[in-house]
Amino acid sequence: MTQAQFEPKDPGYAQRVRDSFALQGAMGTIGAALGNIAPGEVEILLDWAPGLTQQHGFLHAGVVATALDSACGYAGFTLMPGDTGVLTIEYKINLLAPARGQRFRMVGQVVKPGRTVTVTEGRAYAIDDGREKLIATMGATLMTITGRQDVKN
Amino acid sequence: MTQAQFEPKDPGYAQRVRDSFALQGAMGTIGAALGNIAPGEVEILLDWAPGLTQQHGFLHAGVVATALDSACGYAGFTLMPGDTGVLTIEYKINLLAPARGQRFRMVGQVVKPGRTVTVTEGRAYAIDDGREKLIATMGATLMTITGRQDVKN
Amino acid sequence: MTQAQFEPKDPGYAQRVRDSFALQGAMGTIGAALGNIAPGEVEILLDWAPGLTQQHGFLHAGVVATALDSACGYAGFTLMPGDTGVLTIEYKINLLAPARGQRFRMVGQVVKPGRTVTVTEGRAYAIDDGREKLIATMGATLMTITGRQDVKN
Amino acid sequence: MTQAQFEPKDPGYAQRVRDSFALQGAMGTIGAALGNIAPGEVEILLDWAPGLTQQHGFLHAGVVATALDSACGYAGFTLMPGDTGVLTIEYKINLLAPARGQRFRMVGQVVKPGRTVTVTEGRAYAIDDGREKLIATMGATLMTITGRQDVKN
Repeated sequence: MTQAQFEPKDPGYAQRVRDSFALQGAMGTIGAALGNIAPGEVEILLDWAPGLTQQHGFLHAGVVATALDSACGYAGFTLMPGDTGVLTIEYKINLLAPARGQRFRMVGQVVKPGRTVTVTEGRAYAIDDGREKLIATMGATLMTITGRQDVKN
Repeated sequence: MTQAQFEPKDPGYAQRVRDSFALQGAMGTIGAALGNIAPGEVEILLDWAPGLTQQHGFLHAGVVATALDSACGYAGFTLMPGDTGVLTIEYKINLLAPARGQRFRMVGQVVKPGRTVTVTEGRAYAIDDGREKLIATMGATLMTITGRQDVKN
Repeated sequence: MTQAQFEPKDPGYAQRVRDSFALQGAMGTIGAALGNIAPGEVEILLDWAPGLTQQHGFLHAGVVATALDSACGYAGFTLMPGDTGVLTIEYKINLLAPARGQRFRMVGQVVKPGRTVTVTEGRAYAIDDGREKLIATMGATLMTITGRQDVKN
Repeated sequence: MTQAQFEPKDPGYAQRVRDSFALQGAMGTIGAALGNIAPGEVEILLDWAPGLTQQHGFLHAGVVATALDSACGYAGFTLMPGDTGVLTIEYKINLLAPARGQRFRMVGQVVKPGRTVTVTEGRAYAIDDGREKLIATMGATLMTITGRQDVKN
C-alpha cells in the first residue's frame, strides 16, 4: 500500500491515539501494542500466545480482526478533530492465509477521510521465522462522533 | 431470522463442534461458551468482562466479531462431512449499536451450504438489564477443507 | 427474512420512492420495476434479457447487485424524513448460485434505521420455470443526506 | 496500489480475457471496454451515458460495481489455468464519492491468487474535466471453476 499524504486537524493526534488505546481492555488482553503512528496511518504489533489461538494453534481470526480493526479505527482517528470520538460502522476482512507466526503486524490506512464517514484499509502480516507474509486484508468504514460525552475517543 | 431445514451429513456434528471449540484458546480467553447446536445453526454465549472492552467500556467490536465469527463458522461446520475442516474465507460485520450489556448472545446460521463454499449469517445480541437488543450482523463465507491433517476441525 | 415493524416519518414514503426510482436511468436500462413498497421494505422485479448477461448467459452479477442495491437503498429511504436524500456508503453481496431464470425478484429490508446511518439487508431470487431460488444476499449501509439540493431523493 | 509480480499459468491469458469479455452482454449494454491487461491486473473503461444514471444524474453505483467487479474478476482470471472458469463468490464495495464525470476507469488487481480461492481488490476513478478522482474501492473473492462445461471462461 502506498499512502496518500494527509494533514491532521489536531496536532496532538498521536497522543490522543495513545490515550484512547490505553483505555481498551481488549488490547491489553491480547497483548497488542501501538507501533508507528502517522497522519492517516497506524501500526499495531502483537505476539503469538496460547490464549489467542483457534483450533489449529494459529492466531484466531478474531484476534487478527480485533487488532486490524483497531489499526484501521485509529488510522481514521488521527485525522479527526480533537473533540470527537470514532466508531466503526462496519468492516470486512479477507483471511488470505493461516495466521502462523511468532509475531504479527497490522497496518491501518485512511483511503478517504470525511466529515462524517471515513473509509480505511488494513493489512495484517505474520512474521514467521523472520519472514513477513500478508495474511489478511480489511476494509473498514468509520464514523466521526461529535458532541457525545460517552464517545469522545 | 427464520432458519431453513438442513440435513447434517455427519450425525456426530454436535460433538464435533464441541471438540473443536474446546481446542480454541481464544474462546477460553474471552470466556465464550457454546449454547444451542442444531444442523446449520450454532449459538455462543459470553459475559461482559473488563478485559474485553474498548475505550468506552463496552464490549470491544473485535470480541463481538470473534464470537460471532465462531458462531457462523461452527454453524457451517455442522453441515460438513465428518473428516473435514472449516476455514473462514471472509466475513463482514455491521456494528449496529454499542455492545452495552452484561451478557451477549451470538447466533450463526447457514444461508447456503456448498461442497466447497458455504455462506452464513450471524446476529449478535446484547442483554442489558434483561432486555435483548440486536447489536451486530455478520455475513461470513466459509470453505470446507478436505484431506489436510493440519485443518481437520 | 421476517421483517421488523417500522413507522415511516413521511406518510408519502411510497410516492417518494416511485418519484426517485423514475429518475434512475439505470433502472430503465435494465428493465427493473418497483414491486411492493412498505415501511422498511421494497421489492424490485426484473426480466432476463440478452443485454444483461455475463459470459455464460446468466444474469450478470452486476445487474443482480444493481437491482438489489436499489431495493436496499429504497427500503431505507421509506423510513427517512421527507426532505432528505439517500446515498449508499457500502454494500457487500454474496453470489450464492448462478442467476439462471426468466424473472428475478429483489427484496430489500431495513435491519436498523438511524438518524445518519441505516443498515439494510437484501435477498435476490431467480424464478426459473416457476420455481423461486435464492441466488444472492446483500448487506448495505446507507446514509441519510439532509440539506443538500443535489442529493434530496 | 502497487502491484505484486505474478507469473501467468496460461501464456494466452490476455486473449482469454478478451474472448470472455466479448461474451458478456452486460458489458456491451453499459458500453464498457477493456483497457490494459497484465498478469494479475485488468483495467476497464467506461463513458457516462444517460441510461447509466442514478436519480441525481451521476453514474449509478450498480454500474460502477458492475464494471469494477468485472475488472476484479478478469484480474483473477489472468492467473488461472487455461481450461478453467471464474465465478465471483462475493464482493464488497465502498462508494467514496458521487460518480460524477465524463469517463470512468476501473482497475482490478490480484492480492492473493489461490488454487481454489483468489482475493482481489479494485479501484474506480471518475475523470471529470480531465481530473481523475478515486470514487470507489472493492474487495472481491473469486473461485476457480474446473471441469464444468457451463463455466469455463
